[in-house]
Amino acid sequence: MYLFNNFHIFTPKESGEFDFFKGSVLVENGKIKQIFKEKNKIDITLFSKVELIEGHFKKILMPGFIQTHIHLCQTSHRNLAEDMPLIDWLKKEIWPYEASLDKRKMGKTVILALKEIIAGGTTAVLDMGTVAHQKIVFEIMEIVKFRYTGGKAMMDQVDDAPQALRESTAKSIQESWDLKEEFHKKNNGLIHYAFAPRFLLSCSNSLLQEVKKLSDEYEILIHTHGAEHKEEIEYIKTQTGMGNIEYLNHIKALNKFSVIAHMVHLDKVEEQIVKNTNLSVVHCPTANLKLGSGIAPISKYIDENITVGIGADGAPCNNSLSMFFEMKLASLLQKGINHKPELMSANNVLRMATLNGAKILRQEHKIGKIEENFDADLIVLNMDSPQTLNYESNPGAAIVYGADARNVESTMVQGHFLYKNKEFSKEIIDIEKFFNDESSF
Amino acid sequence: MYLFNNFHIFTPKESGEFDFFKGSVLVENGKIKQIFKEKNKIDITLFSKVELIEGHFKKILMPGFIQTHIHLCQTSHRNLAEDMPLIDWLKKEIWPYEASLDKRKMGKTVILALKEIIAGGTTAVLDMGTVAHQKIVFEIMEIVKFRYTGGKAMMDQVDDAPQALRESTAKSIQESWDLKEEFHKKNNGLIHYAFAPRFLLSCSNSLLQEVKKLSDEYEILIHTHGAEHKEEIEYIKTQTGMGNIEYLNHIKALNKFSVIAHMVHLDKVEEQIVKNTNLSVVHCPTANLKLGSGIAPISKYIDENITVGIGADGAPCNNSLSMFFEMKLASLLQKGINHKPELMSANNVLRMATLNGAKILRQEHKIGKIEENFDADLIVLNMDSPQTLNYESNPGAAIVYGADARNVESTMVQGHFLYKNKEFSKEIIDIEKFFNDESSF
Repeated sequence: MYLFNNFHIFTPKESGEFDFFKGSVLVENGKIKQIFKEKNKIDITLFSKVELIEGHFKKILMPGFIQTHIHLCQTSHRNLAEDMPLIDWLKKEIWPYEASLDKRKMGKTVILALKEIIAGGTTAVLDMGTVAHQKIVFEIMEIVKFRYTGGKAMMDQVDDAPQALRESTAKSIQESWDLKEEFHKKNNGLIHYAFAPRFLLSCSNSLLQEVKKLSDEYEILIHTHGAEHKEEIEYIKTQTGMGNIEYLNHIKALNKFSVIAHMVHLDKVEEQIVKNTNLSVVHCPTANLKLGSGIAPISKYIDENITVGIGADGAPCNNSLSMFFEMKLASLLQKGINHKPELMSANNVLRMATLNGAKILRQEHKIGKIEENFDADLIVLNMDSPQTLNYESNPGAAIVYGADARNVESTMVQGHFLYKNKEFSKEIIDIEKFFNDESSF
Repeated sequence: MYLFNNFHIFTPKESGEFDFFKGSVLVENGKIKQIFKEKNKIDITLFSKVELIEGHFKKILMPGFIQTHIHLCQTSHRNLAEDMPLIDWLKKEIWPYEASLDKRKMGKTVILALKEIIAGGTTAVLDMGTVAHQKIVFEIMEIVKFRYTGGKAMMDQVDDAPQALRESTAKSIQESWDLKEEFHKKNNGLIHYAFAPRFLLSCSNSLLQEVKKLSDEYEILIHTHGAEHKEEIEYIKTQTGMGNIEYLNHIKALNKFSVIAHMVHLDKVEEQIVKNTNLSVVHCPTANLKLGSGIAPISKYIDENITVGIGADGAPCNNSLSMFFEMKLASLLQKGINHKPELMSANNVLRMATLNGAKILRQEHKIGKIEENFDADLIVLNMDSPQTLNYESNPGAAIVYGADARNVESTMVQGHFLYKNKEFSKEIIDIEKFFNDESSF
């Protein structure tokens, strides 16, 4: 049991507005048990075994960030694949790298990523794995108690990928299914499976259609990429006469459980498909710029009531996994390219990183807000820093434009500290040691 | 005397390429006395009174970042002026704020800024002050021993600014001149004066022309803003029938000492003027996006051999003063909007932040590189962090895309540590106390 005492509490509400008040939050059994506004005088002796986390009104307590598109498995290939366009980058760098992963390397790269994002205030991800060794990722998540939704990448139709990434349709679906059976909704609901057909260029129609059928039946997310880069779109157009999303819709591979990263270039027909299907879009602004893809018109999507999340994508195309950088960039881009500084306020971006993330993960009934009976997925931001001056007047701006990982003091998932006063949990330290120890394998 | 021992040394060369090698650097009397490549075996006993700074080959030693457009005086107004376009933002927020500054507030805001930028690896700035209280800024720089070029803002023609920011042409020039006389080239050359006519909308022709005359005669920089926002440009066009730069050229107010921030929207005539005049451009990508100005086509400028520097601008339009954020953004934007991921490599951006900065300050003979007999303006980046993995393969990418202020361990200007192992110098701590102490004033 923890009492976050004397904090500035900052949280989106259902309406999309934010609450900001001085108060305290009691966490018990993984949940937010009670929220005290300043005027309440808490008699701490009422609670046995409560550990006091003191905010001294210099710290913000807010819901953790939710990154709805990330490739944890790519983290070790950071700073090694520069200045390349999407398809080249995939074929020359990413796929050979992913093909080289074994169980141990997979563990190391995932832990590296976890440490970075947890220290940066992320409490949940939607992750795209690679083709093999996905099981170890789930096993790590079980031990670390992170909120993880993800699945193995599916690639049943790609002639120019390394052998290790090529699989038959049946095998791809069977392996995905087996992982779903073993891990979906495990760890007190922290772990969810998501089918991960990589993208149109690597998947057969029958795979995409079968995934959609399973997704409908079992209410499992479909996590994929789409409409990212002009070169990719041209290729699909040459082959099918349609855009990415138009074609996916044409073969009936889309549903409301579809979460599609990027969506930089949609035509009007495709925008209508997105709205009709009620699928979700994930904005990855750094990756889109770095690979030369462009800038997704997310202000427009949001105006059209499309659910837009945000994520850092993979380390080889970012190269950090910082939600602070991604949020600031998402806001700046829409203001700048539309010449409308009133667009994409800091709070708008924070909604993408909290409420919308929860909605995309279909966990909006338990995460994304500070609310009684919600899971305690919380972060503490120490705002006593030059870059966050005046945060009391505008907490959203201070967090999105001023703050960075230096301000993250603690990260809690379901009432369990993964990072506390800048120290990682014992589970994280131990599992890192395990994978670094050559004798473990 | 300091010996930076066993570092990865990373420095641009005159050619624009970068050197990256294992070695050590000896600093004496404010200068880089000797550079040892790995193969040299250094007998440390040869140097009396040398303090060893150990790198263990996990740290990079590189030249400090040079921010060639910043408003230190605006830092206290951070996170208070959101979602507004340039002119509104200036008139409703920035000018009233600047008008409210007194000597003590000026000291506090400048120290706040200094702490942030020094902890972020910046060793030199070109700063635009406000109209009054500029003297205290120079006095602080003398004490702190920072490399500072700047001057008081000049605003002799602006009816809608607060009274405290309005001055006559004669007074504006006289006060600028007096400050130049008192501080230019002071502090062993660390301090330089720069005339700072704010922008066309606040300055008379006669002021701009007189400043140019003085600049020519005494080889003093002219630091101003130009071609930033469409609204500003439209206004000038309505009044003069010309663009910003075209008009400044027309009234003969430009010379090779001119340093113009922003330059987001130049027409072909103006681009030619920039080239012919051999003036410098400073890119402020965050500010340009946040105020809805747009994206300056700096790849094109660089291709045309225009000298382009980089800076964080002011805290109210950024809101951090992080060179890491600015560098990453500068690279990402050119890649993204041009759909050319090969544009603006990390090293290209690092040149803007080092070599080009030195050139813009007209100090390229002594800063911007690690070279024997250059001033020791150096930073230590601890690269033993998740976000900078594989930095040995691509130090530029790791610094620009991966690193942030967490990686800055130490910052030295002219052989003097302003920040050492994450602690500020005694001078900085003392002067901060002085300004925070109400009894000082």
